[in-house]
Amino acid sequence: MRISYGLVALGLPCLLGMNGLAQASEGMWTLDNLPLKKMQAEYGFSPGPEWSKHVMQSALRIAGGCSASFISKNGLVMTNHHCASECVEQLSTAKKDFIRHGFLAKSRAEELVCPNFEMNRLDAITDVTDQVKAATAKLEGSAYKQARNAIQAQLTSACVGGDSAHIRCDLVDLYHGGRFQLYKYRRFTDARLVWAPEKAAAFLGGDLDNFSFPRYNLDITLLRLYENGKPVAVKDFFPFNADGAKEGEIVFVAGHPGSTERQHTVAQLEATRDQNIIPNLIRESELRGTIAQFMRSSPEANRIAHENLFYLENDLKARQGRLKTLQDPEVMRLKQQEEAALREYVAKHPEFQHVAPAWDAIASALQAKGELAPEYQALEKGHGFECKYFALARHLVRSAIERSKPNAERLPEYADARLPEIELEVLDNAPVYPHLETVNLRFALEKMREQLGPDHEMVKQILGKTAPSALAWQWIRATKLADVAQRKKLWRGDLKTLQQSTDPFIKLALMLEPKAREVRARFEKEVESVIQKNTALIAQVRFARDGLDTYPDATFSLRLSYGTVKGWQEGKRHIHPLTFIDGAFARDTGSDPFALPPSWHAARAKLNLQQPMNFVTDTDIIGGNSGSPMFNRKGEIIGLVFDSNIPGLGGAYWFDQRSNRTVAVHSGMIIEALQNIYHAPALVREISGQ
Amino acid sequence: MRISYGLVALGLPCLLGMNGLAQASEGMWTLDNLPLKKMQAEYGFSPGPEWSKHVMQSALRIAGGCSASFISKNGLVMTNHHCASECVEQLSTAKKDFIRHGFLAKSRAEELVCPNFEMNRLDAITDVTDQVKAATAKLEGSAYKQARNAIQAQLTSACVGGDSAHIRCDLVDLYHGGRFQLYKYRRFTDARLVWAPEKAAAFLGGDLDNFSFPRYNLDITLLRLYENGKPVAVKDFFPFNADGAKEGEIVFVAGHPGSTERQHTVAQLEATRDQNIIPNLIRESELRGTIAQFMRSSPEANRIAHENLFYLENDLKARQGRLKTLQDPEVMRLKQQEEAALREYVAKHPEFQHVAPAWDAIASALQAKGELAPEYQALEKGHGFECKYFALARHLVRSAIERSKPNAERLPEYADARLPEIELEVLDNAPVYPHLETVNLRFALEKMREQLGPDHEMVKQILGKTAPSALAWQWIRATKLADVAQRKKLWRGDLKTLQQSTDPFIKLALMLEPKAREVRARFEKEVESVIQKNTALIAQVRFARDGLDTYPDATFSLRLSYGTVKGWQEGKRHIHPLTFIDGAFARDTGSDPFALPPSWHAARAKLNLQQPMNFVTDTDIIGGNSGSPMFNRKGEIIGLVFDSNIPGLGGAYWFDQRSNRTVAVHSGMIIEALQNIYHAPALVREISGQ
Repeated sequence: MRISYGLVALGLPCLLGMNGLAQASEGMWTLDNLPLKKMQAEYGFSPGPEWSKHVMQSALRIAGGCSASFISKNGLVMTNHHCASECVEQLSTAKKDFIRHGFLAKSRAEELVCPNFEMNRLDAITDVTDQVKAATAKLEGSAYKQARNAIQAQLTSACVGGDSAHIRCDLVDLYHGGRFQLYKYRRFTDARLVWAPEKAAAFLGGDLDNFSFPRYNLDITLLRLYENGKPVAVKDFFPFNADGAKEGEIVFVAGHPGSTERQHTVAQLEATRDQNIIPNLIRESELRGTIAQFMRSSPEANRIAHENLFYLENDLKARQGRLKTLQDPEVMRLKQQEEAALREYVAKHPEFQHVAPAWDAIASALQAKGELAPEYQALEKGHGFECKYFALARHLVRSAIERSKPNAERLPEYADARLPEIELEVLDNAPVYPHLETVNLRFALEKMREQLGPDHEMVKQILGKTAPSALAWQWIRATKLADVAQRKKLWRGDLKTLQQSTDPFIKLALMLEPKAREVRARFEKEVESVIQKNTALIAQVRFARDGLDTYPDATFSLRLSYGTVKGWQEGKRHIHPLTFIDGAFARDTGSDPFALPPSWHAARAKLNLQQPMNFVTDTDIIGGNSGSPMFNRKGEIIGLVFDSNIPGLGGAYWFDQRSNRTVAVHSGMIIEALQNIYHAPALVREISGQ
Repeated sequence: MRISYGLVALGLPCLLGMNGLAQASEGMWTLDNLPLKKMQAEYGFSPGPEWSKHVMQSALRIAGGCSASFISKNGLVMTNHHCASECVEQLSTAKKDFIRHGFLAKSRAEELVCPNFEMNRLDAITDVTDQVKAATAKLEGSAYKQARNAIQAQLTSACVGGDSAHIRCDLVDLYHGGRFQLYKYRRFTDARLVWAPEKAAAFLGGDLDNFSFPRYNLDITLLRLYENGKPVAVKDFFPFNADGAKEGEIVFVAGHPGSTERQHTVAQLEATRDQNIIPNLIRESELRGTIAQFMRSSPEANRIAHENLFYLENDLKARQGRLKTLQDPEVMRLKQQEEAALREYVAKHPEFQHVAPAWDAIASALQAKGELAPEYQALEKGHGFECKYFALARHLVRSAIERSKPNAERLPEYADARLPEIELEVLDNAPVYPHLETVNLRFALEKMREQLGPDHEMVKQILGKTAPSALAWQWIRATKLADVAQRKKLWRGDLKTLQQSTDPFIKLALMLEPKAREVRARFEKEVESVIQKNTALIAQVRFARDGLDTYPDATFSLRLSYGTVKGWQEGKRHIHPLTFIDGAFARDTGSDPFALPPSWHAARAKLNLQQPMNFVTDTDIIGGNSGSPMFNRKGEIIGLVFDSNIPGLGGAYWFDQRSNRTVAVHSGMIIEALQNIYHAPALVREISGQ
């Protein structure tokens, strides 16, 4: 449930009922626009502004694509194991494998700094709708795109106010151009590993049990945020409540859902299915086979590629679930009906005459997208060269070019307000494994040749007469980009420094620039800006028809969801909402991925086997919500969100209250494990507020 | 263009025009029902019965899924390299790699026997429609299926007449139950390798160029059929014509198209796309990555898995092409219109009232299929254990059980008339590579666990507490089935002999029997027989409406297609129908898969670089037609079919005359290569009839 890679969200609210009204627990609400009346009516509770402010200040975002929260006044942070496992893996070596054996800092001095780990806390929201609309009024195509980039660069830069080390500002487009807001975040870049259980406990059942339930995962990692060498002291945090929630009691999730496409047109949904999900499933399945077989070549290969495989499998399973929804004739029929109803509304309202062609305009842009996508993906998105070295080289080259321009004229990802993230990535000192990178790069080059064809001009220019496997190894043997000092030198230099470099990846990135930018410009003009503009037109009509009692599509910004602990019906089977520790032991076969670690077997006699372990709720979440705190109306942690069930994956396109479920670790389980398996009484005291 | 694995064909003729009439060159016609008037009108030629008889006797079928033909009176046979490459690979060793270096027998004494290679020549066709219909009249479900199996066993057994070593008889269902015929074949089981070029020449461009054009492949292998240690002497064969065909001249293809689904209902096409093609693309892509990465582990791994990867990639590309057709809204719209027109015809004709529910009945059966498919595929089709050892064990166990029953009561694939094939397979002495089989078996076990779920009863029973990778290696280390003598003993024994065996695969196959048969019975009752019966009803209506001037869907039985040498338009680009030898040299980069072998470079100065090499025609073919002779009205070889272009893959569902093209090796190229690259003057003399 980290953000799954894909296109940025488009669209507005809800589906069932077709009247634009959300189902009981449907909705990923912004904290400044909670459906208070609805909550009061349905759950007898409506939070005040202080409550919302406290939640906002206790919640955290992991810049890499997850959620988290403060759980003590001393900057202790809770997230999922799978959200922090990149750090756990980067801190591991062949001799000290924390993924396999887990990690516990016995004192603060033993807490280990995660390489390249940024967390954000939302401190303020400012509405800037008028400024953005004024800046882009009446513009189209490239001119619109440029004006939008410029106002974004200007607003975020002013918001950061020169303190980019501590402040990050994002321009958030809510309701597809309906409302623009500046989200001002406090940046934390010194996160230290405090506790991580063994991967075998965090992810019992592995990919087989992923996105399923009943479930037995201790998918948690604790980190601590530091500033100036000291733990961050915070006023707002969520204390633990070991009892969990009662049946029917309202529970909340505060997190950062990545993206939903609930307001996509039918043509967009079909294109998502046929042009995006299916080709990616095919590509990634082949890569899955490749990486898994590579991992069999040695224990070290197994260790270094572990995370890579996890992300791949997680992504594949998420895509499979989304595909299932988009292959469901009933869902598609509902979507068609919803669209027909809105088009009829447009037809009946002369003031919206100009919106009538929007659906067809989007469909045409999607056709253009289908044609441009192979080049755009391979050359501009860099899928043709997917490996860490190329990502670094691309950033070095692009930032050198972009930084020499005025802020407002840059590619938006290189605007001043975004440079600190880029720098963090470029100077990241996590280990790079040449053999693994060679496997990935060779694969990427082969796929590029397959997709663009061996006769494509760029393919011929890049490969020449060399086979992809030989070329990948040749480049990786020659590059110096694994060396952070080398990167620092290039980062501090200008374009000339780069042009003088003999590094094969720098040379590749420089060589690609003109063509990649040309393809991007065409893509933005013929696809993105057309879709953006016409989606905004459709969104206006929805606003007019349904009013503002709706929630915007997810945008990886802070949202509140609510609901209750609740099982569901799967055909004739009722799925009970709770699992207990004894179930984990029953599932243990002794062989991966069903092998509980030795620490669990050693602790068994001391454990309360009837302690609830995982549970499900009908809250509305999506990828990016991983690591979200789940809490009660008093703001006490009752669980830690780590997954959804398979029907929950369809939540990208619609919320099916009957079966869409959030999967969480029970708060009591976390305390039980810390106490009796991992022997960390100090942490138990800290999170219990003792 | 070997037969691509998949469901057996269903359906009747044509699409465009919706009047049931074939387009100019559309149609895979049976030799006893050629569209003589149409041919005469369009091409000014209509063959007589002698001509047809000669073609029938000169054409051959390779039982494994390809076509071939006699090209000399001394039993010399021409087929594609990729149709005989399994033999070439099986005859190779780490030290003598004929795939890499090619093979040429300098004399008949040097011709090498292919392990397990059966070829069939069609000698007679007998109509048995009345017998089959009488035997199955008024039956449904299992009773229908049993009666159909019984009459099939009875007819084929009588046809073979005890001489199963030389005769094979198939009951062919044409027009989906419209016409049943007995095809009586002469069996040839001693095929010897005469000449195979290097794979690099046969398959220049590899998977990248597969199913594409322009093309530069010498995809040919020559074999010779023997009987009693002597070359088979034949009266009918196709002599060579080195000039090829003139523009506009009618050309013919006689071959064995595997299956088409041109008469599928819309629901069937959607199910093919969503339940069959897409899941298989995902599974096989992962296997592709696995096998390709395994091949990188050593030169020997590369050699032994070579064919495995080729089939996989060929299959994947074929599926991708078919998917593209089934994702095309225009094609689906045409199919919907065609179906609506036929249903309207039914509604207007009271005598067909009973056919009206047929479409919905098929749709319901497809739903049942979706539910039963995972178990049916894994346990009965054996995908859960896919490796050579399991295939052998399953045959040994099943044939022991089935042979103890009366012929008419057996599973049809173990009827007397089919046992010789099974025996050939069971006693096949081709090498088995334990490491490669372990990779495949481990993959199959893992996918079974993924698809049925780790909690499925059979999965738990099969895997126990062992991981699939450990289990695969454990079984393969212990099995003795690689030993042909061992297999011979088990083949000659009865069920008791097998029950006493300690071989893990025999034990597995025995253990699976009850559940596998139960799943099969349900599948046949709830899915197959329902679809078969209702498809036959729909076919009757088509007959009534369109008459008999149509061709049946492909059934891997002998068909004649015709057309002309013709390029096509791809967007704004016109694709010229011919390529020339110089193009092969231009395509050579020196690295695989674009590296011409040394023999070509050595011969370059002597070659006629303007010799046509490959060409395309608008004849109607499909997978299974690989290796088909292409000849002129005089019955002279002008080419060797080896592929279709990408639009040709959509030919499974409809024939698009505008762009569906057959790809062939030019006859003159074959002579040029034999003469000047491979220095085989005796073969040139033999095929030139000198």
